[in-house]
Amino acid sequence: MPAPVPGFPEAAMIACLFFVFLVPLAAAGISLINAGLGRSRSASHMMMAAISSLSIAAVVYFICGFAWQGFIGRPGHVLALSGKSWNWIAAEPFFFRGMAFDGSPASLAALLQIFCVGLAALIPLGSGADRWRLRASCASAAILAGWTYPLFAHWVWGGGWLAQLGANYGLGHGFIDPGGSSTIHVVGGLCALAVTWILGPRRGKYSPDGMAPAIPGHNGVLVLFGCLLALLGWFGLNSAGAILFTGSAPAQTILIAINTMLQAATGSLTAAIITGIRFGKPDASLSANGWVGGLVASSATCAFVVPAEAIVIGSIAGALVTFSVEWFELRLEVDDPGGAVSVHAVGGIWGILAIGLFARFHGPILNVAGNSLPVTGGGAPGQWLARVAANLWPELGPESHLPLPSSDRGRTPGHGSL
Amino acid sequence: MPAPVPGFPEAAMIACLFFVFLVPLAAAGISLINAGLGRSRSASHMMMAAISSLSIAAVVYFICGFAWQGFIGRPGHVLALSGKSWNWIAAEPFFFRGMAFDGSPASLAALLQIFCVGLAALIPLGSGADRWRLRASCASAAILAGWTYPLFAHWVWGGGWLAQLGANYGLGHGFIDPGGSSTIHVVGGLCALAVTWILGPRRGKYSPDGMAPAIPGHNGVLVLFGCLLALLGWFGLNSAGAILFTGSAPAQTILIAINTMLQAATGSLTAAIITGIRFGKPDASLSANGWVGGLVASSATCAFVVPAEAIVIGSIAGALVTFSVEWFELRLEVDDPGGAVSVHAVGGIWGILAIGLFARFHGPILNVAGNSLPVTGGGAPGQWLARVAANLWPELGPESHLPLPSSDRGRTPGHGSL
Amino acid sequence: MPAPVPGFPEAAMIACLFFVFLVPLAAAGISLINAGLGRSRSASHMMMAAISSLSIAAVVYFICGFAWQGFIGRPGHVLALSGKSWNWIAAEPFFFRGMAFDGSPASLAALLQIFCVGLAALIPLGSGADRWRLRASCASAAILAGWTYPLFAHWVWGGGWLAQLGANYGLGHGFIDPGGSSTIHVVGGLCALAVTWILGPRRGKYSPDGMAPAIPGHNGVLVLFGCLLALLGWFGLNSAGAILFTGSAPAQTILIAINTMLQAATGSLTAAIITGIRFGKPDASLSANGWVGGLVASSATCAFVVPAEAIVIGSIAGALVTFSVEWFELRLEVDDPGGAVSVHAVGGIWGILAIGLFARFHGPILNVAGNSLPVTGGGAPGQWLARVAANLWPELGPESHLPLPSSDRGRTPGHGSL
Repeated sequence: MPAPVPGFPEAAMIACLFFVFLVPLAAAGISLINAGLGRSRSASHMMMAAISSLSIAAVVYFICGFAWQGFIGRPGHVLALSGKSWNWIAAEPFFFRGMAFDGSPASLAALLQIFCVGLAALIPLGSGADRWRLRASCASAAILAGWTYPLFAHWVWGGGWLAQLGANYGLGHGFIDPGGSSTIHVVGGLCALAVTWILGPRRGKYSPDGMAPAIPGHNGVLVLFGCLLALLGWFGLNSAGAILFTGSAPAQTILIAINTMLQAATGSLTAAIITGIRFGKPDASLSANGWVGGLVASSATCAFVVPAEAIVIGSIAGALVTFSVEWFELRLEVDDPGGAVSVHAVGGIWGILAIGLFARFHGPILNVAGNSLPVTGGGAPGQWLARVAANLWPELGPESHLPLPSSDRGRTPGHGSL
Repeated sequence: MPAPVPGFPEAAMIACLFFVFLVPLAAAGISLINAGLGRSRSASHMMMAAISSLSIAAVVYFICGFAWQGFIGRPGHVLALSGKSWNWIAAEPFFFRGMAFDGSPASLAALLQIFCVGLAALIPLGSGADRWRLRASCASAAILAGWTYPLFAHWVWGGGWLAQLGANYGLGHGFIDPGGSSTIHVVGGLCALAVTWILGPRRGKYSPDGMAPAIPGHNGVLVLFGCLLALLGWFGLNSAGAILFTGSAPAQTILIAINTMLQAATGSLTAAIITGIRFGKPDASLSANGWVGGLVASSATCAFVVPAEAIVIGSIAGALVTFSVEWFELRLEVDDPGGAVSVHAVGGIWGILAIGLFARFHGPILNVAGNSLPVTGGGAPGQWLARVAANLWPELGPESHLPLPSSDRGRTPGHGSL
Repeated sequence: MPAPVPGFPEAAMIACLFFVFLVPLAAAGISLINAGLGRSRSASHMMMAAISSLSIAAVVYFICGFAWQGFIGRPGHVLALSGKSWNWIAAEPFFFRGMAFDGSPASLAALLQIFCVGLAALIPLGSGADRWRLRASCASAAILAGWTYPLFAHWVWGGGWLAQLGANYGLGHGFIDPGGSSTIHVVGGLCALAVTWILGPRRGKYSPDGMAPAIPGHNGVLVLFGCLLALLGWFGLNSAGAILFTGSAPAQTILIAINTMLQAATGSLTAAIITGIRFGKPDASLSANGWVGGLVASSATCAFVVPAEAIVIGSIAGALVTFSVEWFELRLEVDDPGGAVSVHAVGGIWGILAIGLFARFHGPILNVAGNSLPVTGGGAPGQWLARVAANLWPELGPESHLPLPSSDRGRTPGHGSL
């Protein structure tokens, strides 16, 4: 029995374990949504692709993915550039070798990532519905889990250069994304966009006269039940991520869950209202997309906003997803049956933007190795802009000259203690 | 990071968090049961109504519901009547303003209630299956979440007048209902009764010659799988409620889970045996109703009975639900496809009665602000009657003259300590 | 509120509670797999049989099952044979009488077993699909839950003679099976074999000319979604079993979950690759069987191997299940629609073998009453053989002459401390 890790009490470890164990429900929910939004004859194939992708992602991530992702405060390869050091990839041994499964944040992160990488691998399946071969989707899952995802996740969660932006250029806390709006969803959503590009639309989707008849999902019960399961998975994902990657205490997951629920609710209601006004009847598929879009955006913001702000963020996510689905389908002729590009890429980018616009930080954020960063409170428009900049356009400039609001000084570190 | 709340150790907080996170599975289960018991063509609409009701209930509860429900020991409006003070509605700010999400029981209750109010809002959907328009069901969910539910929940869980009965009139512990047999299920079930009243029966259900052909549910797999999910949700609901509203320790949830499981099992078996004897073949829909009826009754009693009593209570719940479904359908011509009135209203009333008949209290019950009430042990028929009275007919009289059994004196307060 | 049990801190209790509450998801998953692998017209009947079996198993186990299973360190009937004492059946009172539901390991085990016995009772349903009458399956569940399962579980988990093998004959740790590969799955799988034997094949399965046309499962979505739910249930089952029956600390469940995930993944991938090579296209049903086969084998080994070994064990499980299904179906003319015999009996036996072949013990194993057994580290082939022997053929001989590797001496006991 290992001794408790300093600064990470056993209560936080057990809470985190429990949150991590909920995450596969997000994968189950997304699988059902993908299966329900496709055609009936390919539903079983879709679930088979989901199970296979999850399996391959887990095995490949175990083999080499974690070695390249790593964790804050563990070894990485560093580039020296313009006088500053940039950590661009981790340097762990393969096969989880040397990892002590002792309840440390690093070991919990390894377990969490096995599920997160599977979730990311499921996202392109929705876009490739009805036409993606099993072998190709498995190869895509392997590349995502073995290289693309670990690299980007290292930059954000592993103490890499995006997380270092704050310290290196004084850009506030650097790039913050506790639940993976960017690492899981933008990565998965852009991969989905590439897949639709390569596969082209389904036969009969775009006729020569430019009409694009909607091919409705075959099973609304699967889709909407999947939404409910995904909600539980997201509670786990956002809570575990906030504890492991941004130093939240277990008690703060109450706020996280409330925000997550409200964002899903408002995302779905906004989509229902918009489609109700435009088509005379709320559309179930787009409401489901709005629900998941709200969840995706919540991953970045849930720990740092108050519930009233979560409602605004969720409503905007629902509206963005609704219009984006139509825009991709009709303007760009991207045939994306699951709406994966809109839900995950657009929803994720909105989440990253929203954390810059809305987030208030009430304590040090532990996203760079060992160093609790100084706190910058929310409020002034200049700070908002700088924070958006830090999350999106790191080259825009420093915000280190902004004064610290005194109310945020002297807070205790984030983790709970018994 | 907030300091631990006195009397509510972090271990209880983390256990409670985990139980609260299971509650959405109850909502998912009830949604699937509703969808499976209706007609095939309305299954997708039913799930859409479920997601929308959950969303609206969450948002409205956030806006004003919690302000009127409150929590034990927090501000409320008090009426002075016949020399006693009656707390009839809470006086919290709207929008969760001023609420510290710090792991306190009040903040956990706020999170739990967001899910409970959604669960209550789902109940009438089963009764309105195949004929309730989406807009009307959303309006009903908003009224339930914004006014009806918070008011009644305040009376029982928020330190309101029903909870005060014990202290004000010496009626034992007052009205006790840890998991919400009354607040969630009787309220939801009576709302369902009103809905069937207003909507009238489905076309073709009652022919002029008085025949009422059964319209069987379209998908038994959905219904029975929903029952299994609901079981998990109820574990969470009963456990979290017992910790937050009646001061159970985390360890006592073992007994709660055993009782909950046994009540669901015997409820379902009793319904299967009764329908097997009467119709020659056990009826799957009524067995599912018996299962959920047993769960509903368990919400009131689970923390205060031994497993052998749980079996009796569950069996009676199953029998009551079975006969009640037929009675409502054939005698009262109430067309209730989901059996929601029988399962939730009848099952819930039985649960409230059963806690008076069977419950044994082994420690102070924390259901009135700050005051741990004195303990009255079970046993004497006079006490039973008084306790039923306290739970149902508060005007019947005091039981304060009943002696305390010495074995119950000097117990430590209910919450666990590390 | 009971005082914490010495040697079993509250943190371990709460973690264990949470793991136990996940176990019903395994039952839900297996039910869906059974329903999906049968014919469409019997899917609803299958779910009804599942709910009824779970209910009967819970009630019968409560009545007499636990009395005969007991728990390590609690009273049992002992036979003296060849100078050694053999504990062959527990001697608890019926109806959980005298059991203190106080968070002790025994009370947690009672709760866990209510779900485990239900899971075991579900296994034969898959084999009897499409032809087993409800009454007969209920009777089978009652016998399994009231006698067969408790007896065998007492031998392994209750301090019975199989667990005593180590102490009595110096056979290492005796028979070790934290998650129930043997007690749940081999018992359930052999029961399934008996059921297929008694019921005979479905009409039309084996024609007189010896052809056995495959009768494919009717709903791959149910099957594969069931696999995902089962994964969560297994996380709970393996973790709770390891804490209660072999003294793992909560932190060690991280390794358990990683191994469980990797075994499911490799089991499914191996089956997909083998069927892809042999039939030109990966078979979804056999991949699902491989997934569950990997889970079944993980129950024995998950706590005692490193992830790389889990991959080997899972791959072999997947291959064994794939060939075994064909062998039973074509050679032995056993018509087993759910593949329950192959998945649970063959997978479970492989798990028991694998723990002998691969396991490394890094601390005392608490599987015999009160006595932490001395530790035997892994490594030497002689020890492997002896350990296989201890797990399978207890008569083979002692391994007490094998030296203890010094690196394993002096480890602290397994349970976490706050």
